[in-house]
Amino acid sequence: MTLYMIGLGLGDEKDITVRGLDLVQQADMVFLEAYTSILGIEKERLEAFYDKTITIADRGLVENDAESLILEPAKSQKVAFLVVGDPVCATTHTDLMLRAKQLSIKVEMVHNASIMGAAGACGLQLYNFGHTVSIPFWDDKWKPTSFYEKVKYNRQGGMHTLCLLDIKVKEPDFDAMMKGRQKFLPPRYMSVQIAAQQLLEVEDAILQQRAYDGRKTLCIGLARMGQPTQKIVAGTLQELSKADLGGPLHSLIICGECHELELEVVKEFLVEGSTHQLDNNTKLESLPPSDQER
Amino acid sequence: MTLYMIGLGLGDEKDITVRGLDLVQQADMVFLEAYTSILGIEKERLEAFYDKTITIADRGLVENDAESLILEPAKSQKVAFLVVGDPVCATTHTDLMLRAKQLSIKVEMVHNASIMGAAGACGLQLYNFGHTVSIPFWDDKWKPTSFYEKVKYNRQGGMHTLCLLDIKVKEPDFDAMMKGRQKFLPPRYMSVQIAAQQLLEVEDAILQQRAYDGRKTLCIGLARMGQPTQKIVAGTLQELSKADLGGPLHSLIICGECHELELEVVKEFLVEGSTHQLDNNTKLESLPPSDQER
Repeated sequence: MTLYMIGLGLGDEKDITVRGLDLVQQADMVFLEAYTSILGIEKERLEAFYDKTITIADRGLVENDAESLILEPAKSQKVAFLVVGDPVCATTHTDLMLRAKQLSIKVEMVHNASIMGAAGACGLQLYNFGHTVSIPFWDDKWKPTSFYEKVKYNRQGGMHTLCLLDIKVKEPDFDAMMKGRQKFLPPRYMSVQIAAQQLLEVEDAILQQRAYDGRKTLCIGLARMGQPTQKIVAGTLQELSKADLGGPLHSLIICGECHELELEVVKEFLVEGSTHQLDNNTKLESLPPSDQER
Repeated sequence: MTLYMIGLGLGDEKDITVRGLDLVQQADMVFLEAYTSILGIEKERLEAFYDKTITIADRGLVENDAESLILEPAKSQKVAFLVVGDPVCATTHTDLMLRAKQLSIKVEMVHNASIMGAAGACGLQLYNFGHTVSIPFWDDKWKPTSFYEKVKYNRQGGMHTLCLLDIKVKEPDFDAMMKGRQKFLPPRYMSVQIAAQQLLEVEDAILQQRAYDGRKTLCIGLARMGQPTQKIVAGTLQELSKADLGGPLHSLIICGECHELELEVVKEFLVEGSTHQLDNNTKLESLPPSDQER
């Protein structure tokens, strides 16, 4: 019948829209996508609010079993697929939507706030953002830096960069598996602190193309946006690499050129003891002359 | 006491969040911002749904009388300021928030979907958008083209550009005013058709720097996003300059480099008779060699 892809917004059970709530309550089955983001509350609170049973859809379920568990029932029933934020924000959901349409299942979308919109609460204008990048967890052997070129291009054009920070949910525990047990590692969410440390390392030790300056470029750490405990902290990467923003989810913005009105809002979020001058030429200070002239 | 800045989302009265609805219903005064965007429904339907009287806040009220009409009451009462889309999406609202904070009024924000998020419903990934631009109405004497450079920079970096189209609400009627009457022109909303025509003129007759190609570059027209009559139409600018997408609001996307998954969704929106090949190298086809090499 219909697959409803419903955005839950960012905070708790009350951030769903009235339309979304109506549809969840009419649905025959309810899934909650739980591996590209997290809400500030547990599934049980959502279940109580909707008066519905919710099935958690982890990566395995969506990528391997969506056909039988979600799409097959959606041919004859109303299936609600709940997504933290907005349903058009992640590639996975586009894929699910396409597969539904191929099976002639009607797809209806209910939009909501996402981190890409809520990031504007720090005072930076959403118009001025470029490419959004993802920063993955590093380990000793694997230190991908593919986001760096995009940050550089954004900043050369005066644009801000929203960095989405890695989430590791339901990662297999290989040690346990070698002993024949199926076990998963506890979930990990990258903090602003870790992201800032990795960004400093890319710039200072690995690529060194002055896409940004760890001691000068204005950056903004975001934690639990849209939730009552939301925290916003502004400063240099060096300052943010020591800041503690508390529990997940975190995101980080690397500023481009800032307008006065933007800085007016950002200044109240400066981390204690910050030495940042909040000058509005953060675009150029860290770029070599050849880049400035382009 | 508190100024609540509450996003209404994009469609009708049911697109407010449950949290937002609770706050509106508890508010002592309710304003609706009505000059940077519009909902698909009339104020009266909102009033009936909230069981509240709503004061329309036009540009004059917000820019000249916010102090006395909105902020002064907010010192001792709960004032809800409703915004179509999300409250962090327009500079005007940032300004109001700052003025409230200067008067030590608590400001609370309720996020919601905005056009910048809902634009993802056409299949383009929100990660791949650069600078958002505004396209103003032209007249015989005044043809501003400041958006052009940003579109060019976005496309050179492979990014899509969301173009917000001009809205003229409560523009003074100078003819009537010269006769001593205060009168306003009927509201005007730029259509995808007009925007495409202006974009063709900038490229073909005014700036000619091949930021895009009116016969080749993939573009997507969006109308009434998030509403039941939502319409999405893809094609070249030449094709869109003849397309009729119906009533407001419209927006337009000029695509950068498209990934296969994006094109997979976009192809179902191709305008009838479109000659677009949906090749995924729309980034480069229109750029001169020197730009490609950079």
